Amino acid sequence: MNPPKFDALCIGNAIVDVLSRAEDDFLVAEGLHKGTMHLIDNDRAESLYDAMGPAIEASGGSAGNTAAGIASLGGKAAFIGKVAEDTFGDVYAHDMRAIGVHFNTPRLLSGTATARSMILITPDGERTMNTYLGAAQELGPGDIDPDIVGEAAVTYLEGYLWDPPLAKEAFRRAAATAHAAGRRVSLTLSDPFCVDRFRTEFLGLMRDGTVDILFANDSELRSLYETASLDAALAALAADCRLAAVTVGADGAIVVDSDGMSRVAATPVETVADLTGAGDLFASGFLFGVARGMPPIDAARLGTVAASEVIGHIGPRPEVSLLDLARDAGFSL
Amino acid sequence: MNPPKFDALCIGNAIVDVLSRAEDDFLVAEGLHKGTMHLIDNDRAESLYDAMGPAIEASGGSAGNTAAGIASLGGKAAFIGKVAEDTFGDVYAHDMRAIGVHFNTPRLLSGTATARSMILITPDGERTMNTYLGAAQELGPGDIDPDIVGEAAVTYLEGYLWDPPLAKEAFRRAAATAHAAGRRVSLTLSDPFCVDRFRTEFLGLMRDGTVDILFANDSELRSLYETASLDAALAALAADCRLAAVTVGADGAIVVDSDGMSRVAATPVETVADLTGAGDLFASGFLFGVARGMPPIDAARLGTVAASEVIGHIGPRPEVSLLDLARDAGFSL
Repeated sequence: MNPPKFDALCIGNAIVDVLSRAEDDFLVAEGLHKGTMHLIDNDRAESLYDAMGPAIEASGGSAGNTAAGIASLGGKAAFIGKVAEDTFGDVYAHDMRAIGVHFNTPRLLSGTATARSMILITPDGERTMNTYLGAAQELGPGDIDPDIVGEAAVTYLEGYLWDPPLAKEAFRRAAATAHAAGRRVSLTLSDPFCVDRFRTEFLGLMRDGTVDILFANDSELRSLYETASLDAALAALAADCRLAAVTVGADGAIVVDSDGMSRVAATPVETVADLTGAGDLFASGFLFGVARGMPPIDAARLGTVAASEVIGHIGPRPEVSLLDLARDAGFSL
Repeated sequence: MNPPKFDALCIGNAIVDVLSRAEDDFLVAEGLHKGTMHLIDNDRAESLYDAMGPAIEASGGSAGNTAAGIASLGGKAAFIGKVAEDTFGDVYAHDMRAIGVHFNTPRLLSGTATARSMILITPDGERTMNTYLGAAQELGPGDIDPDIVGEAAVTYLEGYLWDPPLAKEAFRRAAATAHAAGRRVSLTLSDPFCVDRFRTEFLGLMRDGTVDILFANDSELRSLYETASLDAALAALAADCRLAAVTVGADGAIVVDSDGMSRVAATPVETVADLTGAGDLFASGFLFGVARGMPPIDAARLGTVAASEVIGHIGPRPEVSLLDLARDAGFSL
């Protein structure tokens, strides 16, 4: 087996974020569940946009953010996701290419617009997402380039891919190709309501060995096992997955592997400006570390360094070099 | 004369900013003058976009930022500027409406795109702008709604409006209408190279009484009077204009009026992340203060509070309520 050309191939919904500050009252008035992702149609997207505050736009999407994080750490990342031939599609493609992420998924030409997510950031820094999938939901099995899958140490997939009808086939094809090439497959659970929609399938992917490395946050993991107890969920997880990293907000992360469970503290931050991308950037550090052969506990620590940068400002991707931050934190990269 | 409905009407180029971090070497390689604005055509816009790093997009434009700042201070602002019927035009219109700025300039339907400015932010926080004017340069005299001009305490105009061929006529019409209604007219010099292009005309506007309130930063003012000495430029300014506010970076601002010159310290900031919008937000505080009858020195202090917010993060407009910040700083608003 050749050494991998990419530390990770990230596959997910290619989304431009529309980020705006909002008060908690606004979430209540709009019937939104704080801290989660809502799928919306075009009409709802327009009415919500009319109601919300001024915004900034930034390329996002969970797996896309993770790919950008790996690149910022000095790693090699590829991304597969679908954008349209429109302004936001141009923005998305630029932002990937500019940071050195390999991205050449064919654009959608049907006239459906590039996906956008209206992200409402409350004063506590929590983000509540409202996603119009648009072109992203046309990602299909034909978009999975088997050569890239075979050249990536890890193929990383969003749970969100279960929402668009064609993408789960793309997901399955990518996983099979990765394993056939002797590579690893990773899944993030993405969102507690996403888990609620696809619980049986996600557990199936873990138990049948499709998923080698699982990412979740505490609410997603508790949703997966339908329990209010994080400890109970972690115990169940240990039986279902050989390697997992569970983020627990300000408490850092918990690594679950054959050695048991280990806790990693969060990297301290002065101010939590915006949690958008925190989990995605944690995943970038963990995946990069694992791909480069770090012990999982060190990879998790690298994940917390990456996450700490992105929550200090509005926007889902790093504003400064994560490689520099990691070196400052003592990593020999 | 009725009390004004608007604290200020801001007229300028309606521009979406494309903000990206860059090293000083990149500016040198691209032949850019740090800290200034370069006008570029569509081909140059494409090649520079290809060469630059990942970016975020945010509504900007000097006068537009000032209008947004006034709204964030709890004031009433109107804006006149030209965008196209395209994605960035929608973004621009949304961001104005969402913050409560009156904005109903007819969109351009010719197919020319909404203006964008690629803003390169160097590690020192300085911004270097590269502006494709697009639809903005179609702003013309017919876009000036005389009713709004008459209802604004101050009509504020960008020096940048001298670049598009039709806009200077719009500028002159707005100024005449404002004075006929017993209102005041303000001009910002915008950029040292802009001053270099239109020095004679700007001095004429000051000396013939078209401009009641002048804004400049130190390099613009020195460019206006073609001197390396700020003191010499300030002395010349005092003879040419009855009220002026000159920003001097970390040293704060200097108010020039019939009482002489007064210095105001800058509001301290922890980190200068991005100077984009600093001058525009200073102007928002100063204009709002003057419109509400504050002594100019207090208005300048309000300007430094507004400027201090916007330089703490990437992006040209406030992320939090300037009214709250001003109250925290002791203003009774």
